[in-house]
Amino acid sequence: MLEELKQRVLEANLLLPKHGLITFTWGNVSGIDREMGIVAIKPSGVEYDHMTAQDIVLCDLDGNVVEGKLKPSSDLMTHLAFYKSFPNVGGAVHTHSRWATAFAQAGRAIPALGTTQADYFYGDIPCTRLMSEAEIHGEYELETGHVIVETFTKENLNPDTMPGVLVHSHGPFAWGKDPFEAVHNAVVMEECAAMAFVSIMLQDNAVQPMQQVLLDKHFKRKHGPNAYYGQ
Amino acid sequence: MLEELKQRVLEANLLLPKHGLITFTWGNVSGIDREMGIVAIKPSGVEYDHMTAQDIVLCDLDGNVVEGKLKPSSDLMTHLAFYKSFPNVGGAVHTHSRWATAFAQAGRAIPALGTTQADYFYGDIPCTRLMSEAEIHGEYELETGHVIVETFTKENLNPDTMPGVLVHSHGPFAWGKDPFEAVHNAVVMEECAAMAFVSIMLQDNAVQPMQQVLLDKHFKRKHGPNAYYGQ
Amino acid sequence: MLEELKQRVLEANLLLPKHGLITFTWGNVSGIDREMGIVAIKPSGVEYDHMTAQDIVLCDLDGNVVEGKLKPSSDLMTHLAFYKSFPNVGGAVHTHSRWATAFAQAGRAIPALGTTQADYFYGDIPCTRLMSEAEIHGEYELETGHVIVETFTKENLNPDTMPGVLVHSHGPFAWGKDPFEAVHNAVVMEECAAMAFVSIMLQDNAVQPMQQVLLDKHFKRKHGPNAYYGQ
Amino acid sequence: MLEELKQRVLEANLLLPKHGLITFTWGNVSGIDREMGIVAIKPSGVEYDHMTAQDIVLCDLDGNVVEGKLKPSSDLMTHLAFYKSFPNVGGAVHTHSRWATAFAQAGRAIPALGTTQADYFYGDIPCTRLMSEAEIHGEYELETGHVIVETFTKENLNPDTMPGVLVHSHGPFAWGKDPFEAVHNAVVMEECAAMAFVSIMLQDNAVQPMQQVLLDKHFKRKHGPNAYYGQ
Repeated sequence: MLEELKQRVLEANLLLPKHGLITFTWGNVSGIDREMGIVAIKPSGVEYDHMTAQDIVLCDLDGNVVEGKLKPSSDLMTHLAFYKSFPNVGGAVHTHSRWATAFAQAGRAIPALGTTQADYFYGDIPCTRLMSEAEIHGEYELETGHVIVETFTKENLNPDTMPGVLVHSHGPFAWGKDPFEAVHNAVVMEECAAMAFVSIMLQDNAVQPMQQVLLDKHFKRKHGPNAYYGQ
Repeated sequence: MLEELKQRVLEANLLLPKHGLITFTWGNVSGIDREMGIVAIKPSGVEYDHMTAQDIVLCDLDGNVVEGKLKPSSDLMTHLAFYKSFPNVGGAVHTHSRWATAFAQAGRAIPALGTTQADYFYGDIPCTRLMSEAEIHGEYELETGHVIVETFTKENLNPDTMPGVLVHSHGPFAWGKDPFEAVHNAVVMEECAAMAFVSIMLQDNAVQPMQQVLLDKHFKRKHGPNAYYGQ
Repeated sequence: MLEELKQRVLEANLLLPKHGLITFTWGNVSGIDREMGIVAIKPSGVEYDHMTAQDIVLCDLDGNVVEGKLKPSSDLMTHLAFYKSFPNVGGAVHTHSRWATAFAQAGRAIPALGTTQADYFYGDIPCTRLMSEAEIHGEYELETGHVIVETFTKENLNPDTMPGVLVHSHGPFAWGKDPFEAVHNAVVMEECAAMAFVSIMLQDNAVQPMQQVLLDKHFKRKHGPNAYYGQ
Repeated sequence: MLEELKQRVLEANLLLPKHGLITFTWGNVSGIDREMGIVAIKPSGVEYDHMTAQDIVLCDLDGNVVEGKLKPSSDLMTHLAFYKSFPNVGGAVHTHSRWATAFAQAGRAIPALGTTQADYFYGDIPCTRLMSEAEIHGEYELETGHVIVETFTKENLNPDTMPGVLVHSHGPFAWGKDPFEAVHNAVVMEECAAMAFVSIMLQDNAVQPMQQVLLDKHFKRKHGPNAYYGQ
């Protein structure tokens, strides 16, 4: 069932190596059918070269496998947290892409320093707090989702205008209205992280955020009722 | 009409992915027919893979579309500012290439540190001032062009010997006698930015500009009446 | 004899250029047949493009060639030290990959800053002490192996959970249960080194190690009796 | 005449884009026939894609063209300085490769920090002094050669064991017994520069040179009467 969703999730997963976001199998994309409440996700530890749509695993929102012979990505429960808490999310992605992961390892948000980021992310891409020992020893992947959602609540962020996050000491997650937009945002985040690193080094670590008014202008030029970018 | 110009603008746009200057659709090249006063430019938000010469949009110097079914690049008005203020410019390009954009995000000129830059740019590649709130909320892309022209006026720069600029918190623009030379200069700027970053880090942020006499020598070895580089 | 081992060692060597770990011939992979006590290793100074399984050299654990017309890798004696001291090692690899080598040149361990490293290496990837003049003038490659083993002994490291090391002023060695896993670990080490460099720069050189509990979680999620990652 | 030399110089030039050492036409390789006293060199400003052996220009050691319809590389006189002053040089190369050029722009030698460099260069790869105004306004390319030779004389360097140099504010030159070895050394220099940059950053700019004894060991393992690396 849901053959089209599985096919799309497969194709979105295959974009990860194409865009240079992954080493080996270090990444996974999922997508949701909101009506059926079913999530399609990459199987765990399977190589991209040999993956087919039939390898994509279908799960319900509690993480029970409803179709598929393989185990789902070990990050499944984190993906599900997005789908449950962020109602407009239709696809999600996790990678260990180099530059974004390096910011996560430094425990540091990717600062909004220019219009490249402003075109997609409305502000600094946040980094979660450290997880507690109880959270790590508990339902770890689910707790990872919770700490992400907590970050958005505490920092009063809107997942529709901030479609990504860094998990402290771990790496980036991104999402979008479908699996392809999620991957698109992950590519943007990685490029913004690389640019921000260079800018920060050039600024001798005294980071100057971009102007709020310019952030607004670029984000709204592409998004919302008065957007005028594109066809 | 202007089929040859559209074809050349198409081909120049396709050089952007070839030279690794762009992610997705983040770049645009234009060219002008000076006699007719018509500018050909990439359509907004269209992917490079599928673009044809018929997708290239023709506009007059006020920004009115005179041929083409698609919307022109949202940066059109910035391109037009070059054509109006810099009489020898025949082609222009904007990208978000990583290294040059990182300098723009740091609000910092790309310093002339060596002969690679001196061969093409006669000095530091300037960075504009921050735009005002009124400029950002006003005719933003047109004002972007104005702030570039202002930078050249204030710093007494010649666009013929300084064929590029960084827009603060945004990214690089470059130009040339035709669309291909514009892209060529954009590639050089990106490489110079990468090299300058490493040199600046090695100098522990105390940047030493190159000798004026060496800058003169290399620029004039390739340009002007006594040039002797090339066939 | 040992045609299958030679074929596997050949294929593992050919993964080095595929993964971008080497320049010219700067790398070598070996594998062992524990029952026969025979090690198969890349010949010295031979280009990857033209290597065949018949070029792979077979040696005993004292370094005597038992089959093959070519000289074995000059690093043979270092490889043998692993096989003699680390009983579970089935394959080993040495490269001069850029990022890991840069850490070795800085005489600095690759710190465990995130889960990417924790998934494969249980802690900081150590860097050996400087070798003494006597060691360098003596049986240099064998002494290189000894100083690696010494590092593991002194720092109480388990080669099964820490499958790699940096040799001071030289570069990385990695190993695994077979030649393919050795190369896999070398790829991971290189990526972790690149990420760690960026994180360290972002932290202004005040490196914060990752949480011990998170290191435990990720390593054990993939390794040991309660691992649940993969199929 | 000298068809084989021209063919080899052509092939060595074509290795520059293959190894990623050049942007556009920013590099040139030459080779010498010592018996005839004739140097074959890349023509100036010609693209690599379309170059043939017939485009390679033959010159005598005073820089007079003796065969070829095109102008020789504008760096010809620098190459000739090597051939006249360094009797064992059979081929030479100049590029603006990113990492080595960045060191040249910082006016800084590439320090010998590890065995990768020690395998090819016996110590720090030197950087010349700034050129004087008289030198730059005089026979510039010839004076560039002179300042390189001066650096070797003053620092008591042997061009046979130090087959490369950085020209201050300009970029790298390398040489070897033939054009292919010259390019090989240029590739190594570029990789060593990249590694050294990262190591220097990790050492917080307090560069620790590698041990002299280790430098000796590695260089002599590959070069000289007791070399034992390779077949």
